[in-house]
Amino acid sequence: MKKFGIVGIIGVGMIGGSIGMALRKRRLADKVIGLGRNPVKLRRAKVLGAIEEGYTDFDKGLKNAGLVIVATPVGLIPVMIKRAFPYLEDGSIITDVGSVKCQLIRKIERFLPQRIHFVGAHPIAGLETFGVENAKPTLFQESNCVLTPTPSTDANALRVIGEMWKGIGARVLLINPVQHDELLALTSHLPHLIAVSLIEVLCNLNKKYKNTKEFIGGGFRDTTRIACGSPIMWRDICLANKKEILNALRKFKSTTNQIEEIISNEKWDMLLRKLIRAKKERDSLK
Amino acid sequence: MKKFGIVGIIGVGMIGGSIGMALRKRRLADKVIGLGRNPVKLRRAKVLGAIEEGYTDFDKGLKNAGLVIVATPVGLIPVMIKRAFPYLEDGSIITDVGSVKCQLIRKIERFLPQRIHFVGAHPIAGLETFGVENAKPTLFQESNCVLTPTPSTDANALRVIGEMWKGIGARVLLINPVQHDELLALTSHLPHLIAVSLIEVLCNLNKKYKNTKEFIGGGFRDTTRIACGSPIMWRDICLANKKEILNALRKFKSTTNQIEEIISNEKWDMLLRKLIRAKKERDSLK
Repeated sequence: MKKFGIVGIIGVGMIGGSIGMALRKRRLADKVIGLGRNPVKLRRAKVLGAIEEGYTDFDKGLKNAGLVIVATPVGLIPVMIKRAFPYLEDGSIITDVGSVKCQLIRKIERFLPQRIHFVGAHPIAGLETFGVENAKPTLFQESNCVLTPTPSTDANALRVIGEMWKGIGARVLLINPVQHDELLALTSHLPHLIAVSLIEVLCNLNKKYKNTKEFIGGGFRDTTRIACGSPIMWRDICLANKKEILNALRKFKSTTNQIEEIISNEKWDMLLRKLIRAKKERDSLK
Repeated sequence: MKKFGIVGIIGVGMIGGSIGMALRKRRLADKVIGLGRNPVKLRRAKVLGAIEEGYTDFDKGLKNAGLVIVATPVGLIPVMIKRAFPYLEDGSIITDVGSVKCQLIRKIERFLPQRIHFVGAHPIAGLETFGVENAKPTLFQESNCVLTPTPSTDANALRVIGEMWKGIGARVLLINPVQHDELLALTSHLPHLIAVSLIEVLCNLNKKYKNTKEFIGGGFRDTTRIACGSPIMWRDICLANKKEILNALRKFKSTTNQIEEIISNEKWDMLLRKLIRAKKERDSLK
């Protein structure tokens, strides 16, 4: 038996498909099974090499899978786990790739029986693209994958999931789910909403000028690129991380108000200091 | 004589250097002369092929230049033109590349004698990089260059500057300076300040968590990339376009407040519609 036995992936999109491809390419699984509602998409995933077999029927598909990865939009993860676990053998491990953790883990730990182990995971490797057509086996190389254990998390299951992510090229970080959601609200969810907001301001201007698009340069394009992400996925994220997102928005508004005040009062030296500091910080992210 | 005769470029940075390289590569000028305060930078520009000769002395450098391009940060443009024009022959043309136009044009038209023609220009091709090391002769290919004539602009000078930009690969658009500044506040200056604001929120969180950077994905990187731009250049832009930038910030805050309100009141269908519309708009920019 290979390292992770038979692996089931529920939701074979960009992330799920990339995990499948990476596991297969590195020969880490005996078989990679795809599960989903849409047979057409499952066939495409098979053709693209993300999975070896595709099933819409959990009963058939999850037979002998010792490791199940749920890679659906955040809102569906608990639902899918609820549907999947009755078919799993004792000691099986379920993990996910959701970008919000607290609410989800709370729900899952409430109904999951002790015989099945759940480990929350979030690979920070998504792009604004989606669908298995955009999956690639190298997606997680050099990226970070955050695992969010709780006091109820089984230590061995945590180790297995950590090894799986390392096995497909990611660096593994551990953090508690509350801190995860606070951090991600700021580093990911807030930037998305800001991009949406910026585009809306531009749309409003389209009523006044017809050719606004010709005045758009690389800066605007970069700043708003993430708005191309899946609307349903992002609606689910906002729903699941409402409290922290509202907190992040408040923090952002307060720094934006400060900048507005500085410009309004023509404190140009103070503005220059802010711009220098921001540049220094951003340069360090490269 | 080649199409644009002897061309002087004041400020041979990323933009000025790219213009020089493009003019030389396409053999559109008899000679490209660089002017600046720093002999080391002028030498580097010469080595990199952006200019043929470099001068710190305007008297020597501008001799016989029929076309002068000022490519310094916005704040210095009127100062440079004031220093340059006494050395120019009757009928010479001065143009610039400043990303804010109204204030600048008003200043320049106030002091420039009728014998010298000024045409305001803004190539929408900048990146977050700067310095002649980042100049390239292809920078303007397929990009837009906005010319901002006023009632005082000489028609022939406008034609010449339009031809120069087309000559080095750009599409040329005409718009009045007031509309230019309103549009650019939104498509360029606002995104910059938002990026700065986002980074500042993250820095504040660094006090609480030490490894915030490990939780940063492609979205945050894209959204904040422009914050790597030159702080002095951006301070000058805010200074020169204060009114329109404050207007843009107000519009942005109002759409952001709307999004906050939608999330706060859990109007998830309305949020989904907003996300779908933003995605559609952003997809159309690709």
